[in-house]
Amino acid sequence: MPNNKNNGEILSQEETEKRKRKIAFWEHKKYICLVKRIDIKTGKNIIVLNTDEAKENDIYGGYRVVLKHHDKELISIVDLSSEMVKKGEIGIFGDVGEALGAKDGDIVQVQQMERPASNEYIRRKLDGEGLSENQIKTIITDLMMNRLSEAELSALITAVYIRGMGEDETVAFTNSIVDSGETLTLGVEPIADKHCIGGVAGNRTTMVIVPLLAASGIYIPKTSSRSITSAAGTADTMEVLAPVDFSIAELKEVVMKAKGAMVWGGGMNIAAADDKMIKIRQPLSLDPRGLLLASILAKKKAVGAKYVAIDIPIGRGAKVLDMERAELLGQDFIKIGKRLGMTVETLITDGSEPVGNGIGCGLECKDVFEVLEGKGPDDLRNKSCLIAGKILELVGKVAEGDGIDVAEHMLQNGKAMEKMREIIELQGGNPKVKIDDLPIGQYKYTVKAEKDGKISHIDNKGMNKIAKAAGSPRDKGAGVYLYRVKGEKVKTGDVLFDIYAESEAKLEFAIKGLEVWEPIELEKFLLSTLR
Amino acid sequence: MPNNKNNGEILSQEETEKRKRKIAFWEHKKYICLVKRIDIKTGKNIIVLNTDEAKENDIYGGYRVVLKHHDKELISIVDLSSEMVKKGEIGIFGDVGEALGAKDGDIVQVQQMERPASNEYIRRKLDGEGLSENQIKTIITDLMMNRLSEAELSALITAVYIRGMGEDETVAFTNSIVDSGETLTLGVEPIADKHCIGGVAGNRTTMVIVPLLAASGIYIPKTSSRSITSAAGTADTMEVLAPVDFSIAELKEVVMKAKGAMVWGGGMNIAAADDKMIKIRQPLSLDPRGLLLASILAKKKAVGAKYVAIDIPIGRGAKVLDMERAELLGQDFIKIGKRLGMTVETLITDGSEPVGNGIGCGLECKDVFEVLEGKGPDDLRNKSCLIAGKILELVGKVAEGDGIDVAEHMLQNGKAMEKMREIIELQGGNPKVKIDDLPIGQYKYTVKAEKDGKISHIDNKGMNKIAKAAGSPRDKGAGVYLYRVKGEKVKTGDVLFDIYAESEAKLEFAIKGLEVWEPIELEKFLLSTLR
Repeated sequence: MPNNKNNGEILSQEETEKRKRKIAFWEHKKYICLVKRIDIKTGKNIIVLNTDEAKENDIYGGYRVVLKHHDKELISIVDLSSEMVKKGEIGIFGDVGEALGAKDGDIVQVQQMERPASNEYIRRKLDGEGLSENQIKTIITDLMMNRLSEAELSALITAVYIRGMGEDETVAFTNSIVDSGETLTLGVEPIADKHCIGGVAGNRTTMVIVPLLAASGIYIPKTSSRSITSAAGTADTMEVLAPVDFSIAELKEVVMKAKGAMVWGGGMNIAAADDKMIKIRQPLSLDPRGLLLASILAKKKAVGAKYVAIDIPIGRGAKVLDMERAELLGQDFIKIGKRLGMTVETLITDGSEPVGNGIGCGLECKDVFEVLEGKGPDDLRNKSCLIAGKILELVGKVAEGDGIDVAEHMLQNGKAMEKMREIIELQGGNPKVKIDDLPIGQYKYTVKAEKDGKISHIDNKGMNKIAKAAGSPRDKGAGVYLYRVKGEKVKTGDVLFDIYAESEAKLEFAIKGLEVWEPIELEKFLLSTLR
Repeated sequence: MPNNKNNGEILSQEETEKRKRKIAFWEHKKYICLVKRIDIKTGKNIIVLNTDEAKENDIYGGYRVVLKHHDKELISIVDLSSEMVKKGEIGIFGDVGEALGAKDGDIVQVQQMERPASNEYIRRKLDGEGLSENQIKTIITDLMMNRLSEAELSALITAVYIRGMGEDETVAFTNSIVDSGETLTLGVEPIADKHCIGGVAGNRTTMVIVPLLAASGIYIPKTSSRSITSAAGTADTMEVLAPVDFSIAELKEVVMKAKGAMVWGGGMNIAAADDKMIKIRQPLSLDPRGLLLASILAKKKAVGAKYVAIDIPIGRGAKVLDMERAELLGQDFIKIGKRLGMTVETLITDGSEPVGNGIGCGLECKDVFEVLEGKGPDDLRNKSCLIAGKILELVGKVAEGDGIDVAEHMLQNGKAMEKMREIIELQGGNPKVKIDDLPIGQYKYTVKAEKDGKISHIDNKGMNKIAKAAGSPRDKGAGVYLYRVKGEKVKTGDVLFDIYAESEAKLEFAIKGLEVWEPIELEKFLLSTLR
C-alpha cells in the first residue's frame, strides 16, 4: 500500500524501509578532511578531493558529496586531484568556503551522496519517456540545490532538444521555474508583458511599448536581459537613461507609481532555475522548444502578467527561419500560456533586417526618443504601435482593430513620452534628458557603396558584430547608424551606414570587422548557391 | 573549386579566404593578464577570468580561449569570477600553469577562440544527421586538445545514445580513438584478445585465458581496467601477483618473451580519447551502443589483435538484460570488428549470478590458481575453457568444436600454470607464489540461511557492494567467498558465504551492508510483482 511520499513519489512500505536502510548505511561511509581554501570563486559548488582517499570512500569524479561543517551542510560536485590535494585534505573554493563558513585548517565532514532522483528522471527522458509534474519539480529542486553536474544538466537539455516536451511537461517545467525564484505580486490589474524571441538588431520596441501602455493604464513591470551575443540588450540600452539593477521590492515601488518599469531581469532572483539552464544552453546554442517556452513564460508568470504579446521575427538571419516553424511555436505559446492563466498573442514579424536606424545603446535610445516624439524610424514606430495596440486590444481597453491607431495617438499626443520621463525619474535617471544628451561615440567611420546596386540583404548578425566590435554594449556611444533598408537602390559612393566608437582603436577594430562580416549585400541573386 | 583542406573538410576558395580573414580579425581581439596561480590540479584545462574584463573581450563562461606564454600555447575553457580574479588577472590552475610554464605574476596573452568545428558537428548529430569520417576525426582531435567542454561532450554522448550510430560512424569513431593514443606493434602473429562486457561478480576468466592461450602459442597482450563500480577489476586482481603498471614498450618486452601479459590499460596511453569519454559516461551511466563498441574495439585494435572473443553476460543484474539485445550487440561486434580487420566471436553467457567462489582480489586469485591447477570452481573453469577454446578455433590452432577440450587439457597438463608463473615473473612478481600465500583478510563473518529454501537469486551488484564495503579492491584480502549457486536447496543455518576484511571496522561496515543489499534471495517466486 502506498503510504509515504518522497520527492513527491509514492513509495511502498517496503521501498520506504529500503531507502531508510540505505541512507542509514551511507551515514557510516563518511570521513573528515582538513580544509585547504582555494582563494577563488567559480560560481559552482565544486570541491577537490584526493583521488586515492576519495576512491577508498567510494567517491569518484563527478559524484556528489554532502559536506558538513558545524551546523552547516552543503552538496557539492567532486573534482579529483592526485598531487595538490593530499590525503586528509579537501580543496574548497571561495563559494563553498563561504557557504560553509569554513576556513583553512577547519575540519569538514565528507559523505557520499546517493545519485539524486533526478539523475534517473533524466535517464527516462533520454529513453523517450515523459516526465511527471513531480519528477520535473524534483529535477528543478536538484538543479537549485546544485546536485546536478554540468554534464547531467547538458544531458537533460540535449534530451529535451531531441525528444521534445509534451504540453503537460512544458507547463510543469514553467511552474517549477517560477517556483524556483521570487515572484512579483502587485495586487492590481490588468498586468501585461511582452517578449521578443530576439536576433533582430536595433529592435528596441520594448522601450516604446512600456511607457505607451503604462500611459494607457496598463501595468507592465518589464524585466529585460542584457546582451549575450547581440550588440545591446534592452537592459543595456535602458541603462543609458536610468539605473536598471533593482530588487523585486524596488521594482514594485516603481510600478505601483508609474504602472511601468524597465529593469534588468538578471539582477533579480526571478525564475532562478532558468538562469542556471541558460548557462549551459548558451555555449551549446541549444534552444529546445519546450525549454524556450518555459523560460520565457516563467518570467512572464513570475511578474504576474495576464496578457502577453510574443514577437517572433522570421527570415534570413533571424532565430526562427520560416513561417511554418514560427506558427508552430506561436501556437505553443498560446496553448501553454492559456494553461498558465495567460492570454497570449503571438505576432510573427519580418526579422530579416534590422529595425530602426541605431544599433548600440545610445543610438537605439535616439531612435526610441524620436519614436516617442511621434517621429523616428517608421519601422520601429509601426512595429511598436502594432504590438502595443495588440495588447490594448487583448486587455479590452480598445476595440479589436483599433489598437494600432490608439497606440499611434499616444505617441502623437505626448503621453507616452511623458510616461517615459516619469519612469526614468522613478528609476533614478534624469527625466529632462534630451536627444542631444544621448551618448554618441566621437570616432566615426562612414561606409559607402562600392558599386551601384540594389540592397538585397542587411545582416542582423553582421551588424551586431560590428556594433560589438566598436564597443557596444559597454561603450554606450558605440554602434552602427543605418541609413538604408532592404530593397533600396544605391549608387557608388552613397552612404550606407556610420560606425561610431568611443576610442580610435575600437573604431579600427570595427572597420577590420567589415572584411569579415559583410553586413550589407548588394544584388546577390543566386543566394542559394553563392555561399 | 575545392582547393584547400581544413580539419579534413574541403573548402572553397571563397570560404578559405573568409576563414583567414576571420582568424586575422580575432588576432586583434586579445589581451594580456597577470597570472594568479591556483595551487591545485583539476585534470582539466580550465582558467578563471574576471567576468567584466572577459565580457569586454567578448568572452563568456564556457567559451574557449587560446593562452600564450613565451613560445607555449594552450587552449582552455573559461570559468568566470567577479571578485577573486580582478581585472588584469587570470586564475590559472596547476595543470594549465605547468603546461604553459607560467608562474605568479607572469604575463599571459588571452585570445578568444572561435567555436571549434566539432561544436557544429555535435549539433548535427543532435539533429539526427550522420557524421562523416573527417567530422568524427575532428571531434576526437578537439576532445584531445581540450577544446570541448564537459557540457558539449555530454551533449555528444547523449545524442549518440538517443540517435544511435551507423556502421560507418562506429568504424570512424573506433579508428579515431585508436589514433588518439599510442599503439602496440608486435610484428608477430597470431595476436588475440578477449573482453567481457562486465557486471558479473568474480568473473575472472581473463587470468585463466591469457596464460592458457600464451602457452598454446597465441600472443595475447591483455590490457585490463581497474574496478570502477565492481568489487575488483582484472588489473586490481592481477596486482596481487605482480605489478600491472607498464608502458607500451615494457608491455611489448613481456609479450615478446612470454606471448602473454596482463597489465593495467589505464596506465598506458592507448585509446586515450576513450578515457576522456568514459569520465563523462560513467557518472551518467550512459553506455550508448556505438560508443561501447568503439571503446572496446579500439582497445583491441590498438594492441594489434586480429582474433577477438567478446563475452556478453545476460540475465537479471547483468548489464545486458536479455538474449535479443545481446544478439544485436553481438552481431554489431562481429560486423564492426570485420570492418576493422578483426575476426570477432561473441559468446552470450549466463550473467545472472557470480562466477567462481571468490569476489575480491585475493579470493579471486585463489579461484584462478585452483582453476589453473585443473580444479577450482567448475563455472569459472568451464567458462574460461569455453572462451579460450573459441579463440583457439578462431586462430585455427584446433579444429572447430575441439577448442574447449584442448583448453581443458592445457589446464590439466600444467602448461597454463607454468605460463602463468612465467608471466608473473616477467611482470616483476614472485613466480613461486602458492595459494596459501594469497592475501585473505583475517576478519571473517559467516552468513547463514535464516530459513529453509531454494536459492532463487544471487545478486551480482549486491555481492560487489558487500565486497567493496569490506575493503575491496584496495584491501587485497577483502571480499566475499560464496559457497552456493542458484537453484541450490539450503536448510536453516547452512553457510551461504563468508565475508573477509582486513579490519574490524570494514567488516562491520560490510555486515551493515547486508541489510541494504540482500545479496542472496530465497524462493521468490513472484519476482515480477514483488519488487
